[in-house]
Amino acid sequence: MNLPKKVKIVEVGPRDGLQNEKDTISAEVKIELVNRLAAAGFPNVEAASFVSPKWVPQMATSAEVMHGITRRPGVVYSALVPNMKGFEAALEAGVDEVVIFGAASEAFSQKNINCSIAESIDRFAEVARAAKEHRKRLRAAVSCAFGCPYQGEVPLEAVADVVRRFRELGCDEIDIADTIGVATPGKVRPVMETAIREFHIEGLSGHFHDTYGQALANIYASLQTGISIYHASVAGLGGCPYAKGATGNVATEDVLYMMNGLGIETGVDLDAVVEAGQFISQQLGRRSVSRAGNAIAAKRAG
Amino acid sequence: MNLPKKVKIVEVGPRDGLQNEKDTISAEVKIELVNRLAAAGFPNVEAASFVSPKWVPQMATSAEVMHGITRRPGVVYSALVPNMKGFEAALEAGVDEVVIFGAASEAFSQKNINCSIAESIDRFAEVARAAKEHRKRLRAAVSCAFGCPYQGEVPLEAVADVVRRFRELGCDEIDIADTIGVATPGKVRPVMETAIREFHIEGLSGHFHDTYGQALANIYASLQTGISIYHASVAGLGGCPYAKGATGNVATEDVLYMMNGLGIETGVDLDAVVEAGQFISQQLGRRSVSRAGNAIAAKRAG
Repeated sequence: MNLPKKVKIVEVGPRDGLQNEKDTISAEVKIELVNRLAAAGFPNVEAASFVSPKWVPQMATSAEVMHGITRRPGVVYSALVPNMKGFEAALEAGVDEVVIFGAASEAFSQKNINCSIAESIDRFAEVARAAKEHRKRLRAAVSCAFGCPYQGEVPLEAVADVVRRFRELGCDEIDIADTIGVATPGKVRPVMETAIREFHIEGLSGHFHDTYGQALANIYASLQTGISIYHASVAGLGGCPYAKGATGNVATEDVLYMMNGLGIETGVDLDAVVEAGQFISQQLGRRSVSRAGNAIAAKRAG
Repeated sequence: MNLPKKVKIVEVGPRDGLQNEKDTISAEVKIELVNRLAAAGFPNVEAASFVSPKWVPQMATSAEVMHGITRRPGVVYSALVPNMKGFEAALEAGVDEVVIFGAASEAFSQKNINCSIAESIDRFAEVARAAKEHRKRLRAAVSCAFGCPYQGEVPLEAVADVVRRFRELGCDEIDIADTIGVATPGKVRPVMETAIREFHIEGLSGHFHDTYGQALANIYASLQTGISIYHASVAGLGGCPYAKGATGNVATEDVLYMMNGLGIETGVDLDAVVEAGQFISQQLGRRSVSRAGNAIAAKRAG
C-alpha cells in the first residue's frame, strides 16, 4: 500500500465549479476567488473558459478575470478552450495551460457535440499544434471515463483509445473524469490501470464527482494505483447537470483533509481554502457543501 | 485486495441519528421509520435507547416505539442501555440486542461520565451477566477510537485495552467508532488491526462519522482489513455535538451505493432506503444530507 508521498491538487472551482451557476457572478468576485486560491498554495488553478458566451454565459468574463488577477509566480493558470478561436483568446489573456476535452463515451460525444469521439479529438489537432508553438501546457479532460448518463457502462478499451489519442496530440496531462459521479472504488482501479498503460502515470489525474458521495473513497482507491494529481473544487462548487440539486465536484477541503491525514504533501494551506470556500459561498448566498469546510468553520465560530 | 463478499449494515438512524434532535419526534414517526428500515432488509436496526429521559429527552418514547413496531422475523432490534434500570426496561420492551458503551479515550470518559474507562466498563458487568441470562445479544460501542475532542490522539494500546475488556464481559459484537469523524484512511488500518488482534473479526464493526467527509474512504480502507459490519444512518441523521451544523453519522444510502458498486452483498434495498430517508427528512422539515439519497431522489423526480 505505497501511496504517493506528494500530490498535485488542481483547483477547478473558478471554472468547472462556477460555470453552471445561473446568477451572474461578477468578474471582481471571480478575481478575488482565484487570487485567494493561488495564495492558498495551489500549483494549478483552473480560472477561465474561452467558450462561446452563448453556451456558457457565466464564463463570458474570462478575459477580464485573467487580466484582473494578480499572477503568482509558479502558479499555472488554466483555461478550457473548445477551438482555435478559444485558443487565441486564451493566448491573448495570458493563460499558462489550455484544456481540451473529449468523452470516453460515444453516446455522450454524439449527444453533446454531435460527432464521434475520434472526430472530436481530431478537431483539436490545430489547437494542440498552436499550444506547442506558443509553449503553453496542453491538458486534456476525458469525460465519462467511469460511466455515462446515456449509455451507462463505458468499456475500458474506449478509455484506452481516448487516452492514446490525446497522447498522440502531445498532451502534457490527461484527466480521467467521473463526470456523473457513478464510480465506486472497485471501478477506479481497472480504469486507472488502463490509463496508466497508455500514458505516463505522473501526467494522469483523477477528476472525481461526489454525486453519490463516493469521491473521497474513489480518490483513496486511485492513490493506491499511484495516480498523484487530483482535481477538486473549493466549497464543492458545481452541481450535477444530470441530477438537479445533486452534488457535483468533490470539495477541495475534504480532499485536503484526507491528504493531510494520510501525510501526503500538497503544499496547500487548508485553513486558507476553508476561508476561500466561506467567501465564495457567502457571495453565492448558500451554504458550502464541503463537509470538512463546514466542520472547520463551525469549530472556528465556537 | 480481498474485500468481504458480504457485509452486515446496522441501521442506527432511529437511535443514534435521532437522539440529538431538539424538536420532539412522535413515537408514530419513529415507528414508521423503524418499520420502513426493517422492510428495506436491514438485519439489524438500532431502534431505541433506555437512558434517562432527563439526559436524552428524544428517547423517552423508546418503550412505546418498541411496542408499536411490527416485528419482522430475522431482524435484530437493538437498544442502548446505560445500566441495569435501562436493561430491565429494554427487556420489558422486547429488545433483541442491548448495546453498552465505553470510550477509548480516558479524557472523554472522565469528561462524559466522570469515571475512568476501566471503571465505566466494570459497571456494565451486571448488565452483561443479565444479557447472557436472558439470551440477549450483547454489543459494545467503543467511542473515540480514532481521536478524541479533548485529548486529540488516542493510543492504539487504549483501543486494544477497551476491546479486551468488552471481550472479557462476553460481548458478541464490538463497534469501533470514529465519534468525531476525524479519521482518515491511513489511520483506519492500524486501529482496525489492533482491534482484530483482540477480538474475532466477524464480530467487529466500523462506525464512521462523516464530519470531515471521510467516512466512505474510511469504510473502504476498513473493508480492506476484512471488517464486515458497518453502521450507517439513513439520510445521514445525527449531527455532531462537537461542531454545530457539521455532518454526523455516515449516510446509509451512500454506504449502500458503494457496497452495490463493489459487488458486496448487503441484502438491503437501496431504493427503499432512499424512500425512508426522504420520509424522515420531510418529517424533520429539512433536506437529507445523503448525497446518494438526494441524487437518486432527484433523478426519480425527473
